[in-house]
Amino acid sequence: MKKKWLFTPGPTPIPPEASLAMAQPIDYHRSADTVALIKDVLEKLKHVFQTENDVLFLTSSGTGGMEGAVANLLSRGDKVVVIRSGKFGERWSEICTAFGVEVIPIDVTYGNSVDPQTVGRLLTEHPDVKAVYATLCETSTGALHDIEALAGLTRVRPTLLVVDAVSALGADDLQMDNWGVDVVVSCSQKGLMTPPGLAFAALNQRAWNAIEHSDLPKYYLDYRKAYESGLEGSVPYTPAVTLLTALQCALDRICAEGIRNTIARHSRLATATRSAVKALGLPLFAVSPANTLTSIRLPTEIDGKAFLKLMLDKYGITYAGGQSQLSGKIVRIAHLGWMNENDVIVAISAFERGLAEIGYDIPLGAGVTAAQEAFAR
Amino acid sequence: MKKKWLFTPGPTPIPPEASLAMAQPIDYHRSADTVALIKDVLEKLKHVFQTENDVLFLTSSGTGGMEGAVANLLSRGDKVVVIRSGKFGERWSEICTAFGVEVIPIDVTYGNSVDPQTVGRLLTEHPDVKAVYATLCETSTGALHDIEALAGLTRVRPTLLVVDAVSALGADDLQMDNWGVDVVVSCSQKGLMTPPGLAFAALNQRAWNAIEHSDLPKYYLDYRKAYESGLEGSVPYTPAVTLLTALQCALDRICAEGIRNTIARHSRLATATRSAVKALGLPLFAVSPANTLTSIRLPTEIDGKAFLKLMLDKYGITYAGGQSQLSGKIVRIAHLGWMNENDVIVAISAFERGLAEIGYDIPLGAGVTAAQEAFAR
Repeated sequence: MKKKWLFTPGPTPIPPEASLAMAQPIDYHRSADTVALIKDVLEKLKHVFQTENDVLFLTSSGTGGMEGAVANLLSRGDKVVVIRSGKFGERWSEICTAFGVEVIPIDVTYGNSVDPQTVGRLLTEHPDVKAVYATLCETSTGALHDIEALAGLTRVRPTLLVVDAVSALGADDLQMDNWGVDVVVSCSQKGLMTPPGLAFAALNQRAWNAIEHSDLPKYYLDYRKAYESGLEGSVPYTPAVTLLTALQCALDRICAEGIRNTIARHSRLATATRSAVKALGLPLFAVSPANTLTSIRLPTEIDGKAFLKLMLDKYGITYAGGQSQLSGKIVRIAHLGWMNENDVIVAISAFERGLAEIGYDIPLGAGVTAAQEAFAR
Repeated sequence: MKKKWLFTPGPTPIPPEASLAMAQPIDYHRSADTVALIKDVLEKLKHVFQTENDVLFLTSSGTGGMEGAVANLLSRGDKVVVIRSGKFGERWSEICTAFGVEVIPIDVTYGNSVDPQTVGRLLTEHPDVKAVYATLCETSTGALHDIEALAGLTRVRPTLLVVDAVSALGADDLQMDNWGVDVVVSCSQKGLMTPPGLAFAALNQRAWNAIEHSDLPKYYLDYRKAYESGLEGSVPYTPAVTLLTALQCALDRICAEGIRNTIARHSRLATATRSAVKALGLPLFAVSPANTLTSIRLPTEIDGKAFLKLMLDKYGITYAGGQSQLSGKIVRIAHLGWMNENDVIVAISAFERGLAEIGYDIPLGAGVTAAQEAFAR
């Protein structure tokens, strides 16, 4: 009896009422019902973003939202600091370079998080830096960055702090207003339990002021047009209507739970998963791991790709593997979105059984036991 | 007993198997199943585009695909001809201007189609024009443009022909290869009977050659990355997976019908609708109307917005109104996508009843009769 379990850091499983909402007859994007829908989801997103700022949305992947945070804020030749600790930090850098923005990179060893002091030193050396582009959870390594500390550096300077919270929003804490983060970008298919196709951004007044002076070309990803339309429950271009209906259902769940509880739940799931991995004697890949996902360094004798294939074929389990130079070397288990303790037990139990199956000597049951003990604490 | 009917030129109704496919548990976008899905839809799209060229897709509205056709093909300061006969031709112009491209506009009276001779004259005057940006069906007016004639002008010159077939693909004929069109852009929520959120582009070798020389900034909407990934059934960024599953179902319907038959069906529905409108004594707004939708100029004594509200509230019918300066002045009835004769009869019958209801003197039943006679021919 085949049954699939998805433990990838996006797309994440969709709650059934959200799935069924998408199967309803589609509505016109200019109808009164859709206007109300857009206003409702944009209001509820403020709760998730922990902000009083308005949130805007685009019909795109998270990367479209990231490009928007470059094209809308900057001008050609502007200088920015980009924290690169994996594939997604590098993406900030690639986008900036594509748009003729000068990048001062801070390269962090994969698995590590940036030292805020390094950022502070660079900002002092280069007072003309327009923005720092950072990542809340570097999904490719599972490392969490100390955004609160970075915001402490930028909010006392004219420099903006732009945070890719694509994978971590709703899982790792990001107090946009309390910490003074200027721009937060995220998307639908991670902590928000909605299929991929929607990107979000929240900007504070400092960021909106910067947009006044930006001369980089933008049209489809124009933040101001998306924001101004959104205030009216409207859109500049036909939006992904079915995804908005699913998002509304998902946001209802998060708002009912309360974002602080949602983050606490993810913390509980992450702690249990890490306890389990340690009990199995395997090393965590991230030094400061996020709540979003747990990255595990595989023993060199294990072929990571073959292991993932076995997990899918025999156990119906999809974990994520490593990307680029980490391919085959790490396994990433997401505990993200529509997940609770039982899901984590399945993820860990199957992980143990898979390792045993390929002949790796682990104490069967030790991971599940450690997770249960963590839940009991 | 409430029942809704959607006659808007996008989103269009979704076939039930496509709706239900979206409600299935979501899959990882790097899974073998999704790789096969992407390869399958890209292959089937070639049939709809009537081309041997590969088709690429983006997770965006149609406008994202249009921006791609500017940002990927051109360089700063390039000169292009843009045919502007409504909101969507004007969009080409706005995108070009946003990217620093010089626009030579051809302004066509709303409701009219461009005279190919005007385009030919301009191309002779300006031999350095890099591309002509045209629209197959100008959705804001319902006018069809003679793309075959335009292609006759560009294919003997180094100038590219880029066609916005966003609303008309699958409804109005566009023989990309036979006519020699260089770039065709479309999207999911019109003739392709899929919810909004996917854009498509097909490019011939001339267009790919032009991409080599383009220096406009692009990242998220990079055609080459989308194309090269697509060949492997992959994507540069997380795609709208649920929309791809719906698209596959919709494409199966079109491929089973055969694109020539699909277009013939739309022609039949459009002819019947136009016959009905004439029989009711109302003027068509477009001089050369498209198969995609029928635009009707309302008598000045009718308040178009109040009429549309009545139609929705009392009859559950959504037509589209006019946009910008045509607001309240025209009604647009789409016969697009998952539509057959019975749908058109509903659209016309309700239109008659609504007009009578607001006290406009029309011969009740004349429209439906004319449509039935058209079907019988």
